Amino acid sequence: MKTARKTSWQRDPEGMRKRILEAATAEFANHGFGGARIDRIAKIAGANKRMLYYHVGNKEKLYLEVLEGTYVAIRAAEKHLNLETLAPIDALARLLEFTWHYYLEHPEFLSLLSIENMHRAKFLKKSRKVKLLHSPFVQLIDDILRRGVADGSLREGIDPVQLYISIASLCWFYLSNNRTLSTIFERDLLDTKAKNVRLAHMIDMLTAALRAPADAPSGQLDATTKRHLEFNR
Amino acid sequence: MKTARKTSWQRDPEGMRKRILEAATAEFANHGFGGARIDRIAKIAGANKRMLYYHVGNKEKLYLEVLEGTYVAIRAAEKHLNLETLAPIDALARLLEFTWHYYLEHPEFLSLLSIENMHRAKFLKKSRKVKLLHSPFVQLIDDILRRGVADGSLREGIDPVQLYISIASLCWFYLSNNRTLSTIFERDLLDTKAKNVRLAHMIDMLTAALRAPADAPSGQLDATTKRHLEFNR
Repeated sequence: MKTARKTSWQRDPEGMRKRILEAATAEFANHGFGGARIDRIAKIAGANKRMLYYHVGNKEKLYLEVLEGTYVAIRAAEKHLNLETLAPIDALARLLEFTWHYYLEHPEFLSLLSIENMHRAKFLKKSRKVKLLHSPFVQLIDDILRRGVADGSLREGIDPVQLYISIASLCWFYLSNNRTLSTIFERDLLDTKAKNVRLAHMIDMLTAALRAPADAPSGQLDATTKRHLEFNR
Repeated sequence: MKTARKTSWQRDPEGMRKRILEAATAEFANHGFGGARIDRIAKIAGANKRMLYYHVGNKEKLYLEVLEGTYVAIRAAEKHLNLETLAPIDALARLLEFTWHYYLEHPEFLSLLSIENMHRAKFLKKSRKVKLLHSPFVQLIDDILRRGVADGSLREGIDPVQLYISIASLCWFYLSNNRTLSTIFERDLLDTKAKNVRLAHMIDMLTAALRAPADAPSGQLDATTKRHLEFNR
């Protein structure tokens, strides 16, 4: 039994590492840094604690790797959008739409970041990787904004970091605070229709906010934007 | 000693009740529903547990009263803005500015709502008061939007609930996730200058998003809006 397990570990160290990180992501997202249990992670990954420590280091190292991994995953997914090939206003609408669906599909992303904010980002601050990751991301948004100003479709003077924070804000808060919002406004804000209404509102507000006054009337989506949006996904 | 305390309690029952609710607000905001300790609340309020239970009921009732109180406070403060007397675009810019400063000055508001969302609003759902409170609030925003459409200053078709959620989103996420955002973007997003930059960006985006195409060029604040904003507060 022991030999068989060792063999499997040695045969596929990367597979084991991946299983450990997956189990750790769920464990930290559900229980926070303090509440997470290394033995639970090891058990779910099919490893033992000794193997886990040997392979990924202590709890803090494992947690930081999970955090870095969660940022790497969303930034990698954004790269696949090929935003640089879209018209500027469509590219930013597409980024918002992507962010919305990503948050809906990855509640662990919201949990992990909330947890790390409760820790005042003390773990994340130690990561060089995560900073290196965001410099090209800001550059990507800045390039879109510059293209839009140059072709006359976007207003001038929008800061790419502020803009990205605003896009993320619109999607994030609606989901993180959905239960209290649904209660005070007496609407189920998570049913399918409500989610579609929310996405349409956000795209409408974003494009109206960014569009140059000389361009198409604000709030109107052009054909390209409509094509890229999948409201009824 | 016992007699003196009883007398003070009987002399000023409302003062005691207020102290209990203040102590409970801080306790629940810092420790959540599960972690809050009734004896700590009683001690800080200068009461004993028996008096506290007699006066405000059990832990759940006290928590719900704290939650209701936190919504009553923000809605009451908004009423003092007299938004109905301002030009529509100024009224909405003022609402955003108010929300921003309120969140900055009331971290317990953010904490309590986050905690209640973790509980999937199971306590808040029992409150009739909080629902009654929000119907006139939505009406107030709807009235501003209607006035703006009528006088040609605002775009048509904006839903008041979606708009309010968006205003709250822009302010909330920047603060709730400030530590991770400051880390990944390598900027201190909480220093005074950064906060002013954020407020200016949000007002700029909001007004550009709402303004009717026929009105002043989007993104330009008119004199009235500028007068009402206190960027350097």
